Amino acid sequence: MADRYANFANSGLGRTMVKRLGLPDPPRLRRHRPGDPLTTGPVLLGAAPGGRLAEPARKLLETSGVQVTDAVSTDTDPTGVRVGALVFDATGIRDSARLRALYDFFHPYARSLRSSGRVIVLGTPPEATGSPAEATAQRSLEGLTRSIGKEFGRGATAQLVYVAPGGETAVESTLRFLLSGRSAYVSGQVIRVGAGDAPAPADWERPLDGKLALVTGAARGIGAAIAKVLARDGAEVIALDVPAAGDALADVANETRGRALQLDLTAADAPSRLAGYLAAGPRAGVDIVVHNAGITRDKTIARMSEDHWDSVIGVNLSAPERVNELLLERGLIPSGGRIVGVASIAGIAGNRGQTNYATSKAGVIGLVQSYAPLLRDRGITFNAVAPGFIETAMTAKMPLGLREAGRRLNSMSQGGLPADVAETIAWFASPGSATITGNVVRVCGQSLLGA
Amino acid sequence: MADRYANFANSGLGRTMVKRLGLPDPPRLRRHRPGDPLTTGPVLLGAAPGGRLAEPARKLLETSGVQVTDAVSTDTDPTGVRVGALVFDATGIRDSARLRALYDFFHPYARSLRSSGRVIVLGTPPEATGSPAEATAQRSLEGLTRSIGKEFGRGATAQLVYVAPGGETAVESTLRFLLSGRSAYVSGQVIRVGAGDAPAPADWERPLDGKLALVTGAARGIGAAIAKVLARDGAEVIALDVPAAGDALADVANETRGRALQLDLTAADAPSRLAGYLAAGPRAGVDIVVHNAGITRDKTIARMSEDHWDSVIGVNLSAPERVNELLLERGLIPSGGRIVGVASIAGIAGNRGQTNYATSKAGVIGLVQSYAPLLRDRGITFNAVAPGFIETAMTAKMPLGLREAGRRLNSMSQGGLPADVAETIAWFASPGSATITGNVVRVCGQSLLGA
Repeated sequence: MADRYANFANSGLGRTMVKRLGLPDPPRLRRHRPGDPLTTGPVLLGAAPGGRLAEPARKLLETSGVQVTDAVSTDTDPTGVRVGALVFDATGIRDSARLRALYDFFHPYARSLRSSGRVIVLGTPPEATGSPAEATAQRSLEGLTRSIGKEFGRGATAQLVYVAPGGETAVESTLRFLLSGRSAYVSGQVIRVGAGDAPAPADWERPLDGKLALVTGAARGIGAAIAKVLARDGAEVIALDVPAAGDALADVANETRGRALQLDLTAADAPSRLAGYLAAGPRAGVDIVVHNAGITRDKTIARMSEDHWDSVIGVNLSAPERVNELLLERGLIPSGGRIVGVASIAGIAGNRGQTNYATSKAGVIGLVQSYAPLLRDRGITFNAVAPGFIETAMTAKMPLGLREAGRRLNSMSQGGLPADVAETIAWFASPGSATITGNVVRVCGQSLLGA
Repeated sequence: MADRYANFANSGLGRTMVKRLGLPDPPRLRRHRPGDPLTTGPVLLGAAPGGRLAEPARKLLETSGVQVTDAVSTDTDPTGVRVGALVFDATGIRDSARLRALYDFFHPYARSLRSSGRVIVLGTPPEATGSPAEATAQRSLEGLTRSIGKEFGRGATAQLVYVAPGGETAVESTLRFLLSGRSAYVSGQVIRVGAGDAPAPADWERPLDGKLALVTGAARGIGAAIAKVLARDGAEVIALDVPAAGDALADVANETRGRALQLDLTAADAPSRLAGYLAAGPRAGVDIVVHNAGITRDKTIARMSEDHWDSVIGVNLSAPERVNELLLERGLIPSGGRIVGVASIAGIAGNRGQTNYATSKAGVIGLVQSYAPLLRDRGITFNAVAPGFIETAMTAKMPLGLREAGRRLNSMSQGGLPADVAETIAWFASPGSATITGNVVRVCGQSLLGA
């Protein structure tokens, strides 16, 4: 499972060879450990004139103990600053001429960002702007942030966060996630924060205290990592997997001090058995549902068996769909609830030999997009992660050439870890993310692959 | 400008070496010549039960002189068929279980498709479906078609065409474009055809007869190709470019029997001078406006000059924006009008060294998305193409490694030609595309690059 090359490239001798031979240079990414500060240095905050997010962002950051340096001040000497993050409020950009404010901020300070630094551009969702010129200018921010993500390197990430008017105070969970090491492998993403308020958890290190979470496919790999991260963040976890994975599942349940539930979700009666189990529990419901269970059965469609089509669609798409329907129908997901799907970059870009898998994962995106608006009034959010190349037992079995291509063809020159996917899910699950719904966020190190 | 490797790989000796050494194998793509039939063989038509598009599609195809073979009939022997296209009506798929119909159609016939064959899946836009389950299933079609595009090879293309309910008869221009050699370098795309009727041109070989078209940046490269293809399709063309390109521009105007207009669109008075020119013309307006003029000034943002930022944003984004605003304000684009922008895959995915260019091209997408809904009532459509690696004088100057990567990292293993971009624009411009608006279609051979 280990990326031996990355370990080598970060060793003393390796570093020299990588430089001399022009080899891929995967940086050691900053990942979150409990107690870590949000950033590795001060946050340089800039804004286009007339923006509405710089001041709320400044307050949030200062309350979080982050030192904020002001880029607007002419006292700031670009040459001397070494910062952990560049945060720019672009909501004041109301036409294409004013895009120049982006250059004025990033040009002098681009080199001041430390390793594993963070770039966050705050904008207004184009669909929520006041004029086509403003919508156009705000839409163009995507090109900037995605280019910066590819340009800055050394483990830096770059994101565009569209905050709906009226969502100014709901952005804290997202800023915290994106600034911290929790988002190590998330870059080049466009995130939408909706209008409304989001309750701040009492303790940002344990935002899920008092919540009950269900994680499917939890016995190993990404699912086990999700269970562990949700438990670390305070949730009580029900780890679900098929009976055949019982031993590994018991280990995860023990480690997370949670419960193990053996169930094959493709069985006709599985949704009702699950609903019965949850209804009978002390909470008569579940706060967080993570549909992680998934399988691959790769073949070109000409060589694929009927069973390989049916089983992949069944496990990856129809099962979460049926489970959602029944849990929602029976009112087992209360207001404040969170549903998270696991899509894939194959579901976005398609993949040779994966017609079944890509169809199922594009369907997971469809689930999010079709259900999220319907669940808004019930106070439930529905989002998805779309993992790229993640180091698991599954990817370790890939042929060397494909594996190395998947690992290196992204802005981090390395694969992600299961924990990176789990951290992103934990951010969706946070009470602070109450106005974030309908998002599909890739956890792919800004993979070159897309559509 | 030529792709010498592709020529070599398609030569007698080259073919043998490519096979023996496992080299990239760029197929010779079928491209449209006037008089060519739509397809290279019969169209195999299939449908999920309960669909609404198979019968309209069958009629359109048969009227166009295409032989239609029915996949639903049990008489069809998969082993014997050799077809030019696989067309599948997926609108009957109303839940994830029924996705199985896709497998039942494509599994037996995947191998029957000829070189440069076509795969078209017809669906219902998820936002126009009757239930979340149907929306989910329709959304999942994206994963299927994009995977097929990567899987089939040999110059085959695969697209998903979402046809809004009530748009059944408006799909002809799109089917014709996608089946023909005009769409040689378009693959893996999702196209939306809106509700309503679209007038069929009297002659599909000259659909733009009687139309006046303005093409900016028309002196060379992609712009010159656009002028030529629009003229071939019957339009009278005003070829516009900066005065410095005057000689080349005159050549294009002569070749297309059109007019040359020397104008620097970034000048403050350029939009009003252009508007005056068009108002004074015999038509007092213009039917088709193609905003092709664009420049690159590549540098990382840390090394980029102010001027390089301003000029790229100015030419690529602000100029078309200002021209549109004035022409629309003065009523110089009549009902039936067409506006087409030229974005870029860099505007979708971002690119190292192109913060300015990617910002401007993402802005072009923003223009389309913000203006298209506003122009619907005026009978004007606004779409964009997003070229990938196109063989031009510009790409010929790229460093060898980058050039070869750009050329080969797509489903066609080769770069596209300027005419491929032009053909896509001509399809948007057709009277038959009256209900197609707000689309951004990549002309990239299904490049791996994306977001």
